[in-house]
Amino acid sequence: MKKIAVLTSGGDAPGMNAAIRAVVRKANYHQVDVMGIYRGYEGFIEGKMELLDLGAVGGIIQRGGTMLFSSRCPEFKEDKYQQQGLEKMKQAGVEGLVVIGGDGSYRGALALSKKGFPCVGVPGTIDNDVPGTEYTIGFDTALNTVVESIDKIRDTATSHENSFIVEVMGRDAGDLALWAGLAAGAESILIPEEPYDLDDIIERMNRGVARGKKHSIIIVAEGVMSGGELAQILKEKAGVHTRVSVLGHIQRGGAPSARDRVLAGRLGARAVEVLLEGGSGRAVGIKNHEVFDYDLDEAFKMKHKAEISLYTLSKELSI
Amino acid sequence: MKKIAVLTSGGDAPGMNAAIRAVVRKANYHQVDVMGIYRGYEGFIEGKMELLDLGAVGGIIQRGGTMLFSSRCPEFKEDKYQQQGLEKMKQAGVEGLVVIGGDGSYRGALALSKKGFPCVGVPGTIDNDVPGTEYTIGFDTALNTVVESIDKIRDTATSHENSFIVEVMGRDAGDLALWAGLAAGAESILIPEEPYDLDDIIERMNRGVARGKKHSIIIVAEGVMSGGELAQILKEKAGVHTRVSVLGHIQRGGAPSARDRVLAGRLGARAVEVLLEGGSGRAVGIKNHEVFDYDLDEAFKMKHKAEISLYTLSKELSI
Amino acid sequence: MKKIAVLTSGGDAPGMNAAIRAVVRKANYHQVDVMGIYRGYEGFIEGKMELLDLGAVGGIIQRGGTMLFSSRCPEFKEDKYQQQGLEKMKQAGVEGLVVIGGDGSYRGALALSKKGFPCVGVPGTIDNDVPGTEYTIGFDTALNTVVESIDKIRDTATSHENSFIVEVMGRDAGDLALWAGLAAGAESILIPEEPYDLDDIIERMNRGVARGKKHSIIIVAEGVMSGGELAQILKEKAGVHTRVSVLGHIQRGGAPSARDRVLAGRLGARAVEVLLEGGSGRAVGIKNHEVFDYDLDEAFKMKHKAEISLYTLSKELSI
Amino acid sequence: MKKIAVLTSGGDAPGMNAAIRAVVRKANYHQVDVMGIYRGYEGFIEGKMELLDLGAVGGIIQRGGTMLFSSRCPEFKEDKYQQQGLEKMKQAGVEGLVVIGGDGSYRGALALSKKGFPCVGVPGTIDNDVPGTEYTIGFDTALNTVVESIDKIRDTATSHENSFIVEVMGRDAGDLALWAGLAAGAESILIPEEPYDLDDIIERMNRGVARGKKHSIIIVAEGVMSGGELAQILKEKAGVHTRVSVLGHIQRGGAPSARDRVLAGRLGARAVEVLLEGGSGRAVGIKNHEVFDYDLDEAFKMKHKAEISLYTLSKELSI
Repeated sequence: MKKIAVLTSGGDAPGMNAAIRAVVRKANYHQVDVMGIYRGYEGFIEGKMELLDLGAVGGIIQRGGTMLFSSRCPEFKEDKYQQQGLEKMKQAGVEGLVVIGGDGSYRGALALSKKGFPCVGVPGTIDNDVPGTEYTIGFDTALNTVVESIDKIRDTATSHENSFIVEVMGRDAGDLALWAGLAAGAESILIPEEPYDLDDIIERMNRGVARGKKHSIIIVAEGVMSGGELAQILKEKAGVHTRVSVLGHIQRGGAPSARDRVLAGRLGARAVEVLLEGGSGRAVGIKNHEVFDYDLDEAFKMKHKAEISLYTLSKELSI
Repeated sequence: MKKIAVLTSGGDAPGMNAAIRAVVRKANYHQVDVMGIYRGYEGFIEGKMELLDLGAVGGIIQRGGTMLFSSRCPEFKEDKYQQQGLEKMKQAGVEGLVVIGGDGSYRGALALSKKGFPCVGVPGTIDNDVPGTEYTIGFDTALNTVVESIDKIRDTATSHENSFIVEVMGRDAGDLALWAGLAAGAESILIPEEPYDLDDIIERMNRGVARGKKHSIIIVAEGVMSGGELAQILKEKAGVHTRVSVLGHIQRGGAPSARDRVLAGRLGARAVEVLLEGGSGRAVGIKNHEVFDYDLDEAFKMKHKAEISLYTLSKELSI
Repeated sequence: MKKIAVLTSGGDAPGMNAAIRAVVRKANYHQVDVMGIYRGYEGFIEGKMELLDLGAVGGIIQRGGTMLFSSRCPEFKEDKYQQQGLEKMKQAGVEGLVVIGGDGSYRGALALSKKGFPCVGVPGTIDNDVPGTEYTIGFDTALNTVVESIDKIRDTATSHENSFIVEVMGRDAGDLALWAGLAAGAESILIPEEPYDLDDIIERMNRGVARGKKHSIIIVAEGVMSGGELAQILKEKAGVHTRVSVLGHIQRGGAPSARDRVLAGRLGARAVEVLLEGGSGRAVGIKNHEVFDYDLDEAFKMKHKAEISLYTLSKELSI
Repeated sequence: MKKIAVLTSGGDAPGMNAAIRAVVRKANYHQVDVMGIYRGYEGFIEGKMELLDLGAVGGIIQRGGTMLFSSRCPEFKEDKYQQQGLEKMKQAGVEGLVVIGGDGSYRGALALSKKGFPCVGVPGTIDNDVPGTEYTIGFDTALNTVVESIDKIRDTATSHENSFIVEVMGRDAGDLALWAGLAAGAESILIPEEPYDLDDIIERMNRGVARGKKHSIIIVAEGVMSGGELAQILKEKAGVHTRVSVLGHIQRGGAPSARDRVLAGRLGARAVEVLLEGGSGRAVGIKNHEVFDYDLDEAFKMKHKAEISLYTLSKELSI
């Protein structure tokens, strides 16, 4: 291969830029050029791309977001648009593609691979919900952002002896809520993977009060219900007043953490290797601290599982 | 005076602890003891307080919230409860009081002063809306928290080429929205002090699009309307889709900024001086970098004004 | 005027980019083009510059350093090089110049102004030592960086019950040391403006020990002596063991604080106004929260003074 | 067991407080009391300790340093002092001990275990150099502190087109330098585990210059040599001028990262379980994301190894 391309797709995540940088530098190390495709699959269809040289990826390792922009592109499911994009790549001499995004973005990569165009997926999403890899790029940063936010909310909760509900991202995966709840010492954590027990939540609040501690923090992943809904339920069922904080989009941004940058460097570089070794329809991931690669097909058959031992632990530590 | 007391009241603000520390240390410097009253005026009524020695205020200068807790205490308007509290102070030998809080908290201080119990107010609130002082303790920290949050949101806005509405605190005062908007380079800022012009907001969004910049940030102070309402209006009136982020309670917490700590040190120390000089019914503030004090009465006659020149400037810079 | 230029000179400071952005946007608001000169006066001599449009200054408001680069250029004192640069400006149609930097950088601006080329200085330096303005762009950010660093060092000092000397920047001006020392609750502060009293420093350390507090923090501005020298003196004179931390260049970098961005916006915009109003040989500054401008000549006659009342206060609060 | 104790020993690390909290809460969950011993083995010898209830460890999860203080205690090697401490424990009814610290601290724990007093070690050190566990508590926080500091230094390096040497902690282990160098995009990294190649370092600096990039960052672990020594060598051997920044003690402090808090929670809780299950002379650690425990003896036979694949990767990415 002489020339490959890279794009970012789906929700942006801190560390995507570090991954782009790794793809470019690793490819350049092997005398392979890299084209940066703008706006994900939308740009792929239109052939909107530019050569990324070493200078183009200078000074981006610490930047949040993605310099290549991202978008959701539902029409890319259609064969017609895939063909159109492949034609553009052919014209430009692009022989392979690295797709940085969540497992939704992997579907496009798989479709292209099946058409004979080698693609490798790199897991970039704050939700940590890509099957096959233990961590995704962006999760660690988002986790720290959530924990720092809860630390701030706790200042007010403590000072006013209030109870707060903090709603964090995570539709299907509770990783962010779970890790953040444990790290921030939350009294209760609600995640999609586990049924919640309203009596237990209320008892934990009362237990604190009984020993003189009048504030508490409840973390709820948006996939369970909204913070407002939970507040409503607690009020109706137990007459308990809580305040609600929805962390929202601040969870996606910011300079990537050290770990996310290291992960991005490792996975981005490995994706290039896989392409150069002739791999296609593959995803890269990390398992037991080792970088590895596996079939994209597999990713859709597996299901990401949150580390449930942390859930049990958080219950024991928040007595 | 041999013994004074200090309490925090109303919404908590970063730097309140630094102010408590300054009160204790400055008083100790003059061989005066300081009692810390818990839960604001509620604790005043009940005489819930403890001696704060140098060790008690060690290691708190950098902590958010207030170690003395805070509360809103509507019943303190009644003469009966004021008398009850004064009785408790008398019993404990407390001869004066420093009240750290917003101008709502100043009313209680004024009432007590009129009953012959010397009180001095220290402005502590993130809203920067205490008349008479140019800055309040907590404003600078909250401002930085808001700006850092918008920086994060901008990462996503840029990557996805979206427009975001960010709702910040400020019911009557637009200072936080105004300063944050200017510091974060927001395209439009809506504050209670100025009428908003929907056409101008929409034109600014379109102007960016026309020159290839597809994202924008609109800051709205909660006193104007909620972020959700603004999004609704923009959708209905202009068919523009925006995302909404409500920053909420993270704005109150966190380690105080350097400036808030310095301000807290200066104002807390001055409050003690005013008491020791025989002042009563006074507030301390900062004007042109000089610490000064003035009648609490005046505070209620004056009205805080936001620095409107910043509003004009932000319009010119966000072309 | 139809076209002006902007350069940054001397040590870089957080907020310089925000000032460049303000210069460009304010000028564009008045239909005036702005050329960005690279590497300070070095680029001025060589005519190394590019047109900065609105897009060129997009996304830089939150970046540390300076996108125009900076350098020290001793040969610019020579008439020959000044003439050479003026020739380049003439060729390019540049009619005026905004110089962002410390008072060293103002000398070049003054020389050019005296040759009939209108220049306006904008104070950008972390040292806060430009005469005439109360604050310089970069000071507030550096101050927060120093205070956050001392907070971290205090964790270790407390845990190990050690005494630390923290050396901060400031050759002639003690502002950074003074404000940081007060904000971080340092036991002693050594600044160039005040003679230090070794006995007092030692007594303060011992006083803490006497009441059970075994750690302490001493801040020394580099202009007084190095941290290592102070440690040596304390060891020899009093047998006291201290650890030394030299904060170094981390003090210059980082995203600018909200206040530095607002100041940069105000001063950068005002500099453009002064040029358009026909001003030359002027500097802009802030005094009592109002932006103003004054003769560059005056800047060299005046002397910046640190707020010495903070020094007295810090002594009273660190009993 | 009805009562156990916990101490922190050696250099402090962020997350030690979170580990203490986990020990107390997990033990309380099993109806076991926890005594907090002050100043490490020094306090053990003197029996200086206090009961830690749930309230005592409230609000410490986010604090740097250690609330139990730490110290180095060379005399604890002597049997006499060990016996004295054991006597104190016996008197107080303490039946087991959790030691949080580096592998130096493990020696004391092993000695006590061999005398029949059950001890379990928890790895707490920023150096990540405890054999047997993949990560130590504090490493992730220190890593982020180092990377954020380098980000700041890079602002100045870029603006002035200078080369910087950044000296980071790590006498025998290069983990901090290695991870930070990769995460910060350093041009060269010097670690104790790998011989350094002066020609390669110089060539990398020149290579950047050749393509127009005039700044570079070199990371050196203190175990290789000091930053000043390296600067001297580069000057003498290649005539290259570099600036030096020694990060120093800021690397130890600060609020623990989310990951360090989670790790502290898991390891602290597991240590209690091991004691309650009758374990003695054991250490807890993490391997492939699973918490496990192993003989302290083994820890001294094994040697911690840095992840050298990161070293190779950093060379490829910093072309």
